[in-house]
Amino acid sequence: MNKIVLAQINPIAGNIEENSKKIIESINKAKKNNADLVIFPELSLMGYPFGDIFIRHKSIIERQLIALENISAKTTSITAIVGFAEPTYNANKKPFYNSVAVMQNGKIINIVRKRLLPNYSEFNDYRYFEPNESTPEILELNGERYGILVCEDSFNDKSFFKEDCIYKTDPIKEIMSKNPSTLINCSCSPSRTGKEYVKNALFSSIAKKYGVNYIYVNQAGYADNLCFDGTSRIYNSNGELTLRAKSFEEDFVITDNLQGKINDIPDGMDKRVDFKKFNTQYKSDLARTYKSIIFGIKEYFQKNGFTKAVLGLSGGLDSSICAVLLCDALGKENVWGVSMPSRITSDESKNDAEILAKNLGINFLEIPLAEAIDVFKPMLNQAFKEVNTDKFEKSTTIENLQARIRATILWSISNEHKQMLPIATSDKSEAYIGYATVNGDMSGGFAPIADVTKTKLFALGRFLNENRAQKNAIPQAILEKPPGAELKINPKTGKTVCAEEENMPYEFLDEIIWFVENAGYGFDDLLNHNFCYEKHHPLTVEDKTEWINKFYWKSKCAVYKWHIIPPSIVTDAHSINSVEYRQPIISKIYR
Amino acid sequence: MNKIVLAQINPIAGNIEENSKKIIESINKAKKNNADLVIFPELSLMGYPFGDIFIRHKSIIERQLIALENISAKTTSITAIVGFAEPTYNANKKPFYNSVAVMQNGKIINIVRKRLLPNYSEFNDYRYFEPNESTPEILELNGERYGILVCEDSFNDKSFFKEDCIYKTDPIKEIMSKNPSTLINCSCSPSRTGKEYVKNALFSSIAKKYGVNYIYVNQAGYADNLCFDGTSRIYNSNGELTLRAKSFEEDFVITDNLQGKINDIPDGMDKRVDFKKFNTQYKSDLARTYKSIIFGIKEYFQKNGFTKAVLGLSGGLDSSICAVLLCDALGKENVWGVSMPSRITSDESKNDAEILAKNLGINFLEIPLAEAIDVFKPMLNQAFKEVNTDKFEKSTTIENLQARIRATILWSISNEHKQMLPIATSDKSEAYIGYATVNGDMSGGFAPIADVTKTKLFALGRFLNENRAQKNAIPQAILEKPPGAELKINPKTGKTVCAEEENMPYEFLDEIIWFVENAGYGFDDLLNHNFCYEKHHPLTVEDKTEWINKFYWKSKCAVYKWHIIPPSIVTDAHSINSVEYRQPIISKIYR
Repeated sequence: MNKIVLAQINPIAGNIEENSKKIIESINKAKKNNADLVIFPELSLMGYPFGDIFIRHKSIIERQLIALENISAKTTSITAIVGFAEPTYNANKKPFYNSVAVMQNGKIINIVRKRLLPNYSEFNDYRYFEPNESTPEILELNGERYGILVCEDSFNDKSFFKEDCIYKTDPIKEIMSKNPSTLINCSCSPSRTGKEYVKNALFSSIAKKYGVNYIYVNQAGYADNLCFDGTSRIYNSNGELTLRAKSFEEDFVITDNLQGKINDIPDGMDKRVDFKKFNTQYKSDLARTYKSIIFGIKEYFQKNGFTKAVLGLSGGLDSSICAVLLCDALGKENVWGVSMPSRITSDESKNDAEILAKNLGINFLEIPLAEAIDVFKPMLNQAFKEVNTDKFEKSTTIENLQARIRATILWSISNEHKQMLPIATSDKSEAYIGYATVNGDMSGGFAPIADVTKTKLFALGRFLNENRAQKNAIPQAILEKPPGAELKINPKTGKTVCAEEENMPYEFLDEIIWFVENAGYGFDDLLNHNFCYEKHHPLTVEDKTEWINKFYWKSKCAVYKWHIIPPSIVTDAHSINSVEYRQPIISKIYR
Repeated sequence: MNKIVLAQINPIAGNIEENSKKIIESINKAKKNNADLVIFPELSLMGYPFGDIFIRHKSIIERQLIALENISAKTTSITAIVGFAEPTYNANKKPFYNSVAVMQNGKIINIVRKRLLPNYSEFNDYRYFEPNESTPEILELNGERYGILVCEDSFNDKSFFKEDCIYKTDPIKEIMSKNPSTLINCSCSPSRTGKEYVKNALFSSIAKKYGVNYIYVNQAGYADNLCFDGTSRIYNSNGELTLRAKSFEEDFVITDNLQGKINDIPDGMDKRVDFKKFNTQYKSDLARTYKSIIFGIKEYFQKNGFTKAVLGLSGGLDSSICAVLLCDALGKENVWGVSMPSRITSDESKNDAEILAKNLGINFLEIPLAEAIDVFKPMLNQAFKEVNTDKFEKSTTIENLQARIRATILWSISNEHKQMLPIATSDKSEAYIGYATVNGDMSGGFAPIADVTKTKLFALGRFLNENRAQKNAIPQAILEKPPGAELKINPKTGKTVCAEEENMPYEFLDEIIWFVENAGYGFDDLLNHNFCYEKHHPLTVEDKTEWINKFYWKSKCAVYKWHIIPPSIVTDAHSINSVEYRQPIISKIYR
């Protein structure tokens, strides 16, 4: 049996020289270990996703080919499979094939081109790639026959996907006519809710169905709002998992019998998610969500040359969760939490913010806002008087003003430090209904929780308090009080208005989001749906209709904000991140 | 000869009910005029571009088909050609064909599906559409034979595009085997620099080459950062233009001999642009640029329910041009210009801002910033002292702070007014090198000049002063002084630092942008290129290298900002707007 290396590397899109260095290092290491075959992920030389980079940086096309030649020269006593963007050099075709080069004896001996090109959600293969139309090739190596596939080529199995097959052909079925004993799948597959379950079940079922071994090599890394989890692995011909590489980091795994260590994955990551059911526990998805966000933060900061983060600490849920995540990703010494109380900030909130910072051991500052607000008031009152209105005190203007002054302070602090990014702490539930403030809590160099809903953040908070080495870092009060921006006072109660008073219960909102994203529910479907919230709070049809209408109306008005969310991490199965979902700002439809 | 209507409508993506109403109105009007045939643009019923809207608003798919049936019922004494998204209902295919329905006698008698699917630049047809693979159909009407094409189907003529043909087949060549006397092209084609020349030359050459009449019906409207100019027209079989509809507005043109009024287009719009040559006059493109921006502003505001705009007036070029454009698009009574001088703002700038506002007759306010800056200083100094540094006074922090306080004031003013948007006044040259401030001049609800370079803005300013009914609205000083943000003082000169001191001459920068965007130049090409600037300012290789390096380095760092540019108008032949160009934030390449 051949000795095989799964080279789970983390390339950077377009950075041919560094990617090539990484590939050669892995080849050399594999050779030192007397491996027969080393396998790299899809597009490992060009990096993925590379977008339109080659259009304005044409030289990378040739530089990539030269690098590929250089890499092949290193394969003197080993076989290597390296993903790259193969130019078609044909004006009638797309610029590239999505190919893997098979290298041996210092030469490229074969090229296998991807056949099935995904062009939905975050995938845009058909913008760049020409589909291969011939049957995938077989690599024969020391008597073993390997069938080579590129990512999506493995995702059209009729017995697995049934009526959800979206392509006309199944490359695996065709390649099986050439009698491979092992299938190799070079991939770039991001981590999202429920996806690991599908991949695991699919690969296992293919291995079993055809009685072949199945080797999956996936990229590790973050790019363009997507986290690639790695988690490369091998299944034997009974469909049993026999080896699994690390998740959310690079790995170099060597095996001479297709077996090896089965590394842990975040708890529950491979559980099936029933997208037709909603609950606020998100049990199987919390460990993975945590891991993917930590990884995304680390990667974004490191790849862009940042080391430090500054965020506002309000004593509320969003900023507290962000603080924990940043602390775990960057180290407590690299995180600055700034409490910026206004006159209406409660003592509880101030205390909670400070306790959290102390618990985490991050840097902590308090900068009261009152004076800044006071100076803006007369400036603005003049403007309002002159042009329209004197209702300044009563409007949302002052609420937004507080949020914008806070962001101004954070950006100023980041300005003064080298390698520091201000953090946008707004969450997904708020993004949907536009409850975050432009130039306020929506603003920052990075938005760690922009794809996490409020109820999931509560669950994540409890998870963090239970599962981090340091228990209960987040004060219990933060996980119990109703969320609210503390931007205005309810004159009836004398207390700050909580978000649910202004919008609708988050439990209800998040269930709408869940079914709109995951089940394609429209207005009527939602109206006919039995919400979890209704089980403990019976609702009239009128109330329910009002909330659903409010969701559509508010999200219609919020679409503009979706387009200016800072770089973030897509982690749910579906999102409103523009890397995936494209909603025209002008559409007027809201159902 | 048939009496034909070119129904140049302005649909809204996904808004089936309103689009359908518009279509029926045009059909009724055509019937009243005893027309035989009424032709609508590509995808006129669904609206274009509709993005992923149908994924989360599934009901529009069926609602569109019902609307199509209703429309067809109106064609009792007329033939209509209506573009729509035809569901494939086939899991193995893309969700739709990009089709036009031919309706007659109250029924759909034929459906023609688009064959060539553009999937580059702003086009993503292959994400949504399945290509048609059969020869386009002929419509026979009162003895005339019409060949029907959908947009790109007309864009693969070998004798015109030569080696730039990007598809394998030419639908026109094939349809000609069926002997049509007239070709009909239903389109959604946006206006960009140099594009009208290509379309005019192409359509004319096709008409002449095949000896057929050629009817082009294009959408008018703005959506998703793109302006569709309409400018529908007819060519006779000699390739001569015989009719032209209006540009940048809806139109309803009726003709019974394929001839009619040749409406004016913006001066120079159909001139050939030599993309291998750069000059700072932009002569043939100024009238079109002006028209497309005005149209884009009008459309965005109206379609989103806004009527008023507020912008900062610095007395500089960017904000002055924006003020003129907003004034012409929205009416002077709907524009608020706010002068927000800081202590270092020169009297000249203050005066120029005020004179401009008076000239235009827009609302004008002055809100000095000094107090606000003074209140932030101790707040921030405390933060800096505690965590890192006391260099606040010396850094860019205070420069950005000024810009951010200004934006905060503008957003607050827009908060107080109904239907008012704050305006981001930053330009394309600044966007490239990241010279605009996040949450500052980059921030707003709309960015009118985000795709116009600085030298083009100077040319546009001169054009506006000469060509608007009101001459010289922009004070001459604004068009003559070197651009600068007036955010800091040069200690040597005691004057505010101008932008070119900090970056490089705009003439040089804009020529880099021109060749990178339009000719695919890389680092070496630029270094070998003779810049216009060099003709009057000889440069050493070292200086030139430094500037080109600076361009790459700064634009690499600015990519993050490209992703959060507010809704804008793409008007140049190429842009960095994410509707068109996709540059990964993480790439590390800068050559």
